[in-house]
Amino acid sequence: MAELRAAVLEANLLLPRYGLVTLTWGNVSGIDRAAGVMVIKPSGVPYERLRADDLVAVALDGTVVEGRLRPSSDTDTHLQLYRNFPDIGGVVHTHSTHATAFAQAGREIPVLGTTHADLAPLAVPVARALSEAEVADRYEESTGTILVEAVGDQGPARVPAVLAPGHGPFAWGADPRAAVEVAATLEEVARMALLTYQLAPGTGPLPAHVRDKHFSRKHGPGATYGQGGGPHDPVAGSGGG
Amino acid sequence: MAELRAAVLEANLLLPRYGLVTLTWGNVSGIDRAAGVMVIKPSGVPYERLRADDLVAVALDGTVVEGRLRPSSDTDTHLQLYRNFPDIGGVVHTHSTHATAFAQAGREIPVLGTTHADLAPLAVPVARALSEAEVADRYEESTGTILVEAVGDQGPARVPAVLAPGHGPFAWGADPRAAVEVAATLEEVARMALLTYQLAPGTGPLPAHVRDKHFSRKHGPGATYGQGGGPHDPVAGSGGG
Amino acid sequence: MAELRAAVLEANLLLPRYGLVTLTWGNVSGIDRAAGVMVIKPSGVPYERLRADDLVAVALDGTVVEGRLRPSSDTDTHLQLYRNFPDIGGVVHTHSTHATAFAQAGREIPVLGTTHADLAPLAVPVARALSEAEVADRYEESTGTILVEAVGDQGPARVPAVLAPGHGPFAWGADPRAAVEVAATLEEVARMALLTYQLAPGTGPLPAHVRDKHFSRKHGPGATYGQGGGPHDPVAGSGGG
Amino acid sequence: MAELRAAVLEANLLLPRYGLVTLTWGNVSGIDRAAGVMVIKPSGVPYERLRADDLVAVALDGTVVEGRLRPSSDTDTHLQLYRNFPDIGGVVHTHSTHATAFAQAGREIPVLGTTHADLAPLAVPVARALSEAEVADRYEESTGTILVEAVGDQGPARVPAVLAPGHGPFAWGADPRAAVEVAATLEEVARMALLTYQLAPGTGPLPAHVRDKHFSRKHGPGATYGQGGGPHDPVAGSGGG
Repeated sequence: MAELRAAVLEANLLLPRYGLVTLTWGNVSGIDRAAGVMVIKPSGVPYERLRADDLVAVALDGTVVEGRLRPSSDTDTHLQLYRNFPDIGGVVHTHSTHATAFAQAGREIPVLGTTHADLAPLAVPVARALSEAEVADRYEESTGTILVEAVGDQGPARVPAVLAPGHGPFAWGADPRAAVEVAATLEEVARMALLTYQLAPGTGPLPAHVRDKHFSRKHGPGATYGQGGGPHDPVAGSGGG
Repeated sequence: MAELRAAVLEANLLLPRYGLVTLTWGNVSGIDRAAGVMVIKPSGVPYERLRADDLVAVALDGTVVEGRLRPSSDTDTHLQLYRNFPDIGGVVHTHSTHATAFAQAGREIPVLGTTHADLAPLAVPVARALSEAEVADRYEESTGTILVEAVGDQGPARVPAVLAPGHGPFAWGADPRAAVEVAATLEEVARMALLTYQLAPGTGPLPAHVRDKHFSRKHGPGATYGQGGGPHDPVAGSGGG
Repeated sequence: MAELRAAVLEANLLLPRYGLVTLTWGNVSGIDRAAGVMVIKPSGVPYERLRADDLVAVALDGTVVEGRLRPSSDTDTHLQLYRNFPDIGGVVHTHSTHATAFAQAGREIPVLGTTHADLAPLAVPVARALSEAEVADRYEESTGTILVEAVGDQGPARVPAVLAPGHGPFAWGADPRAAVEVAATLEEVARMALLTYQLAPGTGPLPAHVRDKHFSRKHGPGATYGQGGGPHDPVAGSGGG
Repeated sequence: MAELRAAVLEANLLLPRYGLVTLTWGNVSGIDRAAGVMVIKPSGVPYERLRADDLVAVALDGTVVEGRLRPSSDTDTHLQLYRNFPDIGGVVHTHSTHATAFAQAGREIPVLGTTHADLAPLAVPVARALSEAEVADRYEESTGTILVEAVGDQGPARVPAVLAPGHGPFAWGADPRAAVEVAATLEEVARMALLTYQLAPGTGPLPAHVRDKHFSRKHGPGATYGQGGGPHDPVAGSGGG
């Protein structure tokens, strides 16, 4: 548990370092699957003051298990993702600038280049809109539900991030750091996609054979990227290297 | 008074840290309502050299009460805001890049996403143009007047910032730091709005039920964001957390 | 002369600090009018290694007076500006991103807001193209000539910067630091103008009465900005404060 | 060899310093022509943890000569460039934002200004697409092949960088640092070109006489830029100075 707290703390501190947050707008969680307990950032605490024992431990049913502070207001969204994706170990939510612009525009991010294909073989989708009833009752949990729906049969390994419409990105990975690396990759992929559309509005997706080559270089049993050593290797992110 | 000076100094130093200023183009003030005295940045002094005793104390009628330096050239605008909004405790003016671009374009910033809705439930308006007479006589005070007019009946809690046309943003809050957090949020919201329009020029506002849910999570008696502990908690800014 | 060297060194070091240069693409000079000697950055030396005795002293006729290194390749452009504008004390050339984009597009930067009006009451002009003969013979001096032509009768105080077409900005001021502050203001004004056009392509100039009010607040005998104390006060830059 | 390792390490560390990489997406190599051995970054290792003895030495035929880590996944692309361009001493690959946007858009970067002309007298080309067979078999080597084809008869001194379509930029120079300076210049030139097109979509290339003047000031026997002292002098980059 101390190890998980340390990993979640470190991953939260990567958010300002990677330029993914303004003020306190972002949160990372991690999970101890054996214990069925998630550790998450407390609500509204600045990153520079955040300490491991400020983090809040919450059971999968939402009960606070440990912690003197209120958990992130997005806690129920994180829990819904952990309940539905048993293989993920970390979740992150940010309002990173370019990914949020796509979310506000209601546009998915297609695979326009190998940077994206190194991360995922599919477009990053926009979830459906929430109904008035879903917003009125269990808003945060419902947000998790529409993210899960957007992932669908493809599964969270092939769809490692989804845009909540009018809101912003949620991302996940094998552990908290891997989730943050997905979020950092997503933001850069979104920025490049926006610039690509400015240069050539009708740009189509990368040819399938290049896309699949890049995804398979970094993910799955035949991966040749990195040093073959664990959850961060191959790096869950993207790009050449 | 020493406490107010410290708070105003700290808030001014946040301006370069949050990337809201070039050179010396920005100023923050705070007010001691009991004493009827505002403390504000002196004119043209670089942030890295600014010290608490450089700040200038000015009575609500404009009389300099304490200080060896000239107060900010925008002093009379700040005073006009304090006179008309008795509940605010801090005011900030910047030329932050994207908010200023909206001011120069004469376009309000609509509520395109939850980042904005976490800050305010309404578009950030553009004040009306000043007449030649208003510019010739009491220009700075008149600037305050058109900001107050743009806030109108909605009040400064629901309209925490206004764009002076062709000029730039003014923002306010419960205290100097809260005002700067509004200014930082506004700049990021403006940047995201501009990028959203590049992706989808006709983007409409966020559905009202999502907008109101987010605003009420962070503001007012039912707020669930933050640790419930004071003027900065819930954070006056915006975004998830 | 040691004082001038120190001022020119400090002003060159502001270029990377203000984000105005990539690699070694920028140079600042200053002049000792009594001695008729200009001090300028040597060619191709990185800012982090630059020392006061690396700077090169050049007489107004182009003769190197002191220094073991080659002066900037733009030396003859600086000299031409000093010869034609007897009241300026510092010159700077950069390839700052947004000002250079306007130069490459061949578009002047109109006065779209008060940030610009605080700097200058007129559009920042684009100089005319150089003829083949002017490029073949005395290219750098000819570049100075077209800048002087673009300033014309308005004079260098009202036109503190000009864009060399397809090239980038040159700026000047009372001393080297003031020139760099003009260059920093120009880059930010160019960035804001580009973003303003993205939001509202047909944006017209600021009304003349607002423009003149802002220019006169910061420049000339009736200036009310700053602490009234010297060449950097009022700050030669721009913006509120 | 220790000297080459030091040079390659230093050049890799310039990538994050110049803002050319996200996470681990970029790699630099250098070559010892006498030994026929290339030294390159290992795959997936973060720059802040990279040490000289982490670098991998690879013979020109692809055999790993020295090193305990896997070389960059782009190793065969680097080797193909060294085999075909006997005069280059350093190669760099990044996914830098704006150059990658041009690669994704499939658009070459024309010579729109002197910043570009200081680097190269020609547009930075986009290589042709790879066939399915080339992607399936020896993908990385084939990527090198299409880069070499895009350089063609002009040679690598006049075409110091090429965009791999849908992928990103590759650049080269006399040594590893010179290659990184080309990559940094290319990214800034790409950014300026994109902004220029936003201001004036139909902007044509710089007049040939200005373009050739700038290229010849910095490259070749008549170069007048820099201090005339070695491979970094004149600086292989671009821009005034």
